Amino acid sequence: MALQQFGLIGLAVMGENLALNIERNGFSLTVYNRTAEKTEAFMADRAQGKNIVPAYSLEDFVASLERPRRILVMVKAGGPVDAVVEQLKPLLDPGDLIIDGGNSLFTDTERRVKDLEALGLGFMGMGVSGGEEGALNGPSLMPGGTQAAYEAVEPIVRSIAAQVDDGPCVTYIGPGGSGHYVKMVHNGIEYGDMQLIAEAYDLLKSVAGLNASELHDVFAAWNKTPELDSFLIEITADIFTKVDDLGTGQPLVELIIDAAGQKGTGRWTVETALEIGVAIPTIIAAVNARILSSIKAERQAASEILSGPITEPFSGDRQAFIDSVRDALYCSKICSYAQGMALLAKASQVYNYGLNLGELARIWKGGCIIRAGFLNKIKQAYDADPTLANLLLAPEFRQTILDRQLAWRRVIAIAAERGIPVPAFSASLDYFDSYRRDRLPQNLTQAQCDYFGAHTYERTDRSGSFHAQWF
Amino acid sequence: MALQQFGLIGLAVMGENLALNIERNGFSLTVYNRTAEKTEAFMADRAQGKNIVPAYSLEDFVASLERPRRILVMVKAGGPVDAVVEQLKPLLDPGDLIIDGGNSLFTDTERRVKDLEALGLGFMGMGVSGGEEGALNGPSLMPGGTQAAYEAVEPIVRSIAAQVDDGPCVTYIGPGGSGHYVKMVHNGIEYGDMQLIAEAYDLLKSVAGLNASELHDVFAAWNKTPELDSFLIEITADIFTKVDDLGTGQPLVELIIDAAGQKGTGRWTVETALEIGVAIPTIIAAVNARILSSIKAERQAASEILSGPITEPFSGDRQAFIDSVRDALYCSKICSYAQGMALLAKASQVYNYGLNLGELARIWKGGCIIRAGFLNKIKQAYDADPTLANLLLAPEFRQTILDRQLAWRRVIAIAAERGIPVPAFSASLDYFDSYRRDRLPQNLTQAQCDYFGAHTYERTDRSGSFHAQWF
Repeated sequence: MALQQFGLIGLAVMGENLALNIERNGFSLTVYNRTAEKTEAFMADRAQGKNIVPAYSLEDFVASLERPRRILVMVKAGGPVDAVVEQLKPLLDPGDLIIDGGNSLFTDTERRVKDLEALGLGFMGMGVSGGEEGALNGPSLMPGGTQAAYEAVEPIVRSIAAQVDDGPCVTYIGPGGSGHYVKMVHNGIEYGDMQLIAEAYDLLKSVAGLNASELHDVFAAWNKTPELDSFLIEITADIFTKVDDLGTGQPLVELIIDAAGQKGTGRWTVETALEIGVAIPTIIAAVNARILSSIKAERQAASEILSGPITEPFSGDRQAFIDSVRDALYCSKICSYAQGMALLAKASQVYNYGLNLGELARIWKGGCIIRAGFLNKIKQAYDADPTLANLLLAPEFRQTILDRQLAWRRVIAIAAERGIPVPAFSASLDYFDSYRRDRLPQNLTQAQCDYFGAHTYERTDRSGSFHAQWF
Repeated sequence: MALQQFGLIGLAVMGENLALNIERNGFSLTVYNRTAEKTEAFMADRAQGKNIVPAYSLEDFVASLERPRRILVMVKAGGPVDAVVEQLKPLLDPGDLIIDGGNSLFTDTERRVKDLEALGLGFMGMGVSGGEEGALNGPSLMPGGTQAAYEAVEPIVRSIAAQVDDGPCVTYIGPGGSGHYVKMVHNGIEYGDMQLIAEAYDLLKSVAGLNASELHDVFAAWNKTPELDSFLIEITADIFTKVDDLGTGQPLVELIIDAAGQKGTGRWTVETALEIGVAIPTIIAAVNARILSSIKAERQAASEILSGPITEPFSGDRQAFIDSVRDALYCSKICSYAQGMALLAKASQVYNYGLNLGELARIWKGGCIIRAGFLNKIKQAYDADPTLANLLLAPEFRQTILDRQLAWRRVIAIAAERGIPVPAFSASLDYFDSYRRDRLPQNLTQAQCDYFGAHTYERTDRSGSFHAQWF
């Protein structure tokens, strides 16, 4: 039997879909799953008639692959990845390459890279975004590892990735755990986008009283604007058209429990930002909003005890309000991406990742959940100035915000006065207003620390470290 | 020579001051420092004539103490604590007790407790708050460990702690790393308090145009109210009276660089909150504001490019605005403490700490940086209902916020419209408005996750897990 070009371990839905994508693009492959039933079911169903062969032991799996072997592991992050790696180690030969396509913590990937390279094996951490559908038809791929490892998989990843106007949605990210780092931040940005959309929806529904059909129209219209044209706005418009098929006749979204979970990557994004000292308040607000949403029973009890402000029904110009919410959403989104990109820039310095921020924006243009026309503007901003300190300073985004800031500010004022929580909108505005501020009030913080803890302070008018006798 | 009752290792300023406090309260002690010069200097100066003896080797130090030995370690958190513990281990006898009085990460403390208890030694992690002055004259102490370990030090810690109307500011916190956990959250709350005061100062100065003398008057007046009477408000009032003594004649605070640092405990508080799933947005905003403040040069450059809204000079009623800022500060402070206490309540469940929240509020009433009359109200709230789900639900705080919410909301609207960042005020209001909301917009988030990732959702009208064909 001829040797297969590629191996894939882990046949959950992402693994299955990637296998079919790889095969469809002309690469033969062997698949393996810990439980044989899953492999058998896949072979009997979706893989039938395809250039895919099953293996029922890791020994057979490894023996079926051409050398140097290229093995994509699609199992749960954490212990399961370590377990597969440990099982593969004795079966592989020098030069073979393992690619972890899950959402692993980047420090785990760094550890595995070191561990396997010491054995002469290659290890690559590759972020895969796009959900089930992306995995099947073209995801955005973020492979990190050695340049040589990337070259070994380049033909495959370029073929299976989403294709956009300027190429496939994959690029060599950088060394070590950089691929998983970038995917983690991508997910943090996705949290931000989703929360901002949720707040826009809440304002339109709760302040202006839009029903599902009107909400569909608004989001569908926004999806046609160059600013907001994006997958997440598109599916939001779709969602409002879906009617419950269990007999209530109501819009399905209104029957869904308002309690969201938060997985590892959102939390990890916050942790790394705090560790390397980058402010990402919009993304943090998004993670936090999910946590607050999850204590549904406690909120329900509190809603009966804590009353909000008594306000008149909304009587302003409805379309003007809708447009203001759109502007607030877009300005906040720019701030969120500015934070994510600033985090990537700092991480690139701290971890020597050598990230190309414009390229990252480019490979997110297709395949992944945050795909949007907006990313083209980000790519162009970095093409025009690769040393850009912050996206807010790029002429395009600067002007966009300056033109829209009054609307943005008005929306936040209205939300505060009417008792509608807009944590990510607010965090974005506070980020903008802090970032553009020469003088923040932390001089008082420093004075306090020096007062009670003799922490010393610096002065605006001379260099050195000072301590005052405050009392 | 008679054996000494207590040992103290580490003669930085906190260690020196605690040594003097312990001696002043009638306990004899031996002190040791890694570098002999520091010990010699202490003995020749502040310890002169006191019932304190120096040791210049750990062997002599240990030999000088009565058994079971009680040794307080005041060295930098992390490696230095481990180094001291490793050096002490072979010198100690079963039943001896090491107390770590630094700001150690609670998981490090858990590890050390296990390690030392396996050797028959005791280990206690004790939070110490109050800065230099508190250490000398009476800190707030948060000792965690076994009940037996606490009893071994109880007479000493009760003597040296700050004394308030209902006893010394110390109590047995709970097992394992609970003392350091509580101290960590105390510091997170302190970050919140300091940021809220900084925002109030910024609004009063930047919107209403108050000068240092007027700011002093406002904070001094606030410090006389039962709501805001506190150490941090008191020192803030003091700070505004301090004139630069390097010749400028200006208020010193206005000459201090507005760039604040953030240390381990603030970041750790955020990390543990995300890990165990408790929303602490005000405290997070405070940590984040310090990060943003620290990129001073970048902000200065941005301030020349990103203009804010053009607004008329403030023409409203000045005293009404000052009162509204006071109300916003107090409402936000209640939210911040509600978050901190909710975090402690959840941690108590997750880690089996058995925390008594009312007692924690009580021991913070004196000695520590967040000491305030307000803590008495918190203690009373938990005394009245030890199972209180959230401080916002306690009648006193609920009514306080409901009475003041319009002013709070107006301040945030004014800040948004005038371009003054108020991240912690906003995060607090968004917390309040989310917590009291039966229905948040995360139903849309769940619909989106189900749309692109088949994550499934729950329904409001029937139980089970559902997946829709959205497209």
